[in-house]
Amino acid sequence: MTNKKIINALKNIKNDVPPIWLMRQAGRFLPEYREVREHLGSFLNLCYSPKDAAEVTLQPVRRFGFDAAIIFSDILVIPDALGVDVSFVQGEGPKLSPIQSAQDIKKLDVDKVISHLNPVFEALKLTKEHLPESAALIGFAGAPWTVSTYMIEGGGSKDFSTTKKFVFENPKLYQELQEILIQATSLYLIEQIKSGAEVIQLFDSWSGVLAHEEFRDLVIKPAKKIVENIKKYSPDTPIIGFPKGAGFFYEEYIKEVPVDGVSIDYTVPLEWAAENLQPHVCVQGNLDPVILATSQELIRKRAREIKDILGNGRFIFNLGHGILPYTPIENVELLVDIVRNE
Amino acid sequence: MTNKKIINALKNIKNDVPPIWLMRQAGRFLPEYREVREHLGSFLNLCYSPKDAAEVTLQPVRRFGFDAAIIFSDILVIPDALGVDVSFVQGEGPKLSPIQSAQDIKKLDVDKVISHLNPVFEALKLTKEHLPESAALIGFAGAPWTVSTYMIEGGGSKDFSTTKKFVFENPKLYQELQEILIQATSLYLIEQIKSGAEVIQLFDSWSGVLAHEEFRDLVIKPAKKIVENIKKYSPDTPIIGFPKGAGFFYEEYIKEVPVDGVSIDYTVPLEWAAENLQPHVCVQGNLDPVILATSQELIRKRAREIKDILGNGRFIFNLGHGILPYTPIENVELLVDIVRNE
Repeated sequence: MTNKKIINALKNIKNDVPPIWLMRQAGRFLPEYREVREHLGSFLNLCYSPKDAAEVTLQPVRRFGFDAAIIFSDILVIPDALGVDVSFVQGEGPKLSPIQSAQDIKKLDVDKVISHLNPVFEALKLTKEHLPESAALIGFAGAPWTVSTYMIEGGGSKDFSTTKKFVFENPKLYQELQEILIQATSLYLIEQIKSGAEVIQLFDSWSGVLAHEEFRDLVIKPAKKIVENIKKYSPDTPIIGFPKGAGFFYEEYIKEVPVDGVSIDYTVPLEWAAENLQPHVCVQGNLDPVILATSQELIRKRAREIKDILGNGRFIFNLGHGILPYTPIENVELLVDIVRNE
Repeated sequence: MTNKKIINALKNIKNDVPPIWLMRQAGRFLPEYREVREHLGSFLNLCYSPKDAAEVTLQPVRRFGFDAAIIFSDILVIPDALGVDVSFVQGEGPKLSPIQSAQDIKKLDVDKVISHLNPVFEALKLTKEHLPESAALIGFAGAPWTVSTYMIEGGGSKDFSTTKKFVFENPKLYQELQEILIQATSLYLIEQIKSGAEVIQLFDSWSGVLAHEEFRDLVIKPAKKIVENIKKYSPDTPIIGFPKGAGFFYEEYIKEVPVDGVSIDYTVPLEWAAENLQPHVCVQGNLDPVILATSQELIRKRAREIKDILGNGRFIFNLGHGILPYTPIENVELLVDIVRNE
């Protein structure tokens, strides 16, 4: 048993109270984050300024005593490191130079990834120095499917039809791209572990738009390879998979991908997760972030339900998706109190 | 046994070959549709011009011999008929004057719905006159949850957090809005049946963003009321529910809502649908529309799979979502041929 509750939960060691952290906890809902952000101009600037990235990573742990800090970064640093033009336009979301041809894929350079992302590793080291002993440091990356949608669409998308069409019409080309992303992501995550990350989370935010066969090829297959690569280097570092919106396929995901934990979105019924996922892995989730932005009465009701149903097994309390920018600070304080003391 | 295969399927009467129609079959992928559309300016103009709406409704049946025509209209005609400002901005999607207060809801006028939507009923009558005897005429509406998201967000949305926040913070007010939508939608669909609709489909396109409790309150509850209202007036008219993205909750939906059929999106595994849905209702679906826009080889493979697994029970072949505007005509011809002859 360690003094880090999140690591205990992932290693199937019983905690007295469930650990808690929140996705996007280093973010716009915090005034101290907004202050740092204002000084730095572009979003990627903040990701690549080790001191500032470490500072905003530590802020929510300082304020709420969360059981983990997740390194402040973005899933699009991987395409950026591979040589794709990535920019974040205020109010419009990310813009990327879209991948359309074999030539575009040939230009992607895996060899540059580690040196390009050195500021992230520096930020991890700095964070680790100042992190309380009870809090675990979480490193993360986007999974190949989700990252590839941004690369192929040139930004966000409503239905991902451009990416899916690319996959169906250029299966070999897509496989090359997937292979590059598997390599880059594995290297990146291993280097995060070397730099102090104690837990890894792999985000596949757009898993929910795929039929079964595509889910296997585009979500499970690359996740399995990445997790195996990491486990080869560091068998003891727990890994959490988050195939958001996977619905029916969460079960197959945890059976095929050797993760230690699975993060579930808020559409997953608690009893189902307790019965089908929790016997095999640690379950993390799954309060709807909209609820956290509403009344304290509703937060209490739903948080207790989650704790009641999932709290007896391997469990990390979290949201089912990132915290919303307009979430009141006092609601987060209340949630932490409910999870720990009620 | 009727000579309308779609009605047979919905009434559990065995067909020799599965019936087929495609969601959004009256749409931009057809050159003859684009021609009509060009002459008419705004999208709502087309919905409210009975002759033109009937013409575009009939076009895909004429060209492909589909087993059903679905009346050309839009789910947002209900807010429009209730007095909300609705406009369709090219390339930007629909814009509505957003519902924000009790006063906004008070202004909604159910009494105007039937007279306002008279052109839709006229279009149904005209379509019926020219429809081949083997084809069924489908009427439809958006379900209250989905329609309310457009009304509260003032248009489309990425995460529906404004609507969900409204629901959580103003449960009574939302219930008033839901009640108005249940009434208006029931009246509208009954009048569609009076005007010649032989099958009704209720679209709840954004069902997939809700946790279990919200799914019950916001999707199942109003669908049940609407379907019961219709069944009171016309017990013999089959009704198809489409809680798109319902995932885990499709099963509960068909058990609670007395629909005759359920349309499933392409993320639903075929074997699961055959085992859990088909014994109770007719299943409609579920080819990914992106696949229909790709290679003939892949279309054949996936269409046959669907037919093999679902074709022995109560079944209507369809897409898992609306047809994409850039779908080649010859792919649709091929699909119809595969479903009927292979």
